[in-house]
Amino acid sequence: MKLLQVDFAYPNLMGSTLSEGMIELANSINDEAGLIWKIWTEQIKDKRGGGIYLFDSEANAERYLQMHSKRLQTMGASDIRGIIFDVNLPLTRINQGPVPQEG
Amino acid sequence: MKLLQVDFAYPNLMGSTLSEGMIELANSINDEAGLIWKIWTEQIKDKRGGGIYLFDSEANAERYLQMHSKRLQTMGASDIRGIIFDVNLPLTRINQGPVPQEG
Repeated sequence: MKLLQVDFAYPNLMGSTLSEGMIELANSINDEAGLIWKIWTEQIKDKRGGGIYLFDSEANAERYLQMHSKRLQTMGASDIRGIIFDVNLPLTRINQGPVPQEG
Repeated sequence: MKLLQVDFAYPNLMGSTLSEGMIELANSINDEAGLIWKIWTEQIKDKRGGGIYLFDSEANAERYLQMHSKRLQTMGASDIRGIIFDVNLPLTRINQGPVPQEG
């Protein structure tokens, strides 16, 4: 299990206003190999968007990050920062972290 | 509800090996005002640690970030990056994001 943390500069954040395009994009993300969940993040003040993802494996997280980085660039994002982390499960369990049991 | 994303350079990551000190720290985090959950993240290869937190309010997230940044420095962390994000709830719901209902 891997956590993918992505954030980027994006001038066109819309807050809770949703375009049909973003709903379609979210639906398509459910079909990505190995995705467990995604939290969509945004900071209107500094015009930064992002996402926190849980994937089943490093390979699937890495493949998604490569594809998504290119997609973000075509959408007008810049300063894209993506890091794939391990999850420390024992400590995360103590703090109610929403990570399923492995295995 | 706010998502706090923190990551930092840390030379002493231990993977799944846990010291009693880290367990105590995790337990204390459960007592922080407004904390809903924390996921503990680490990347051994690049010696980067971090955490993804969900808080009930911006004020509580901001207060924790200030306190935690100082604590991380005393623990030997550097290049500390902390960003408080809004969560786009409609898109997050589409992707099974582990965020409780508000209100």
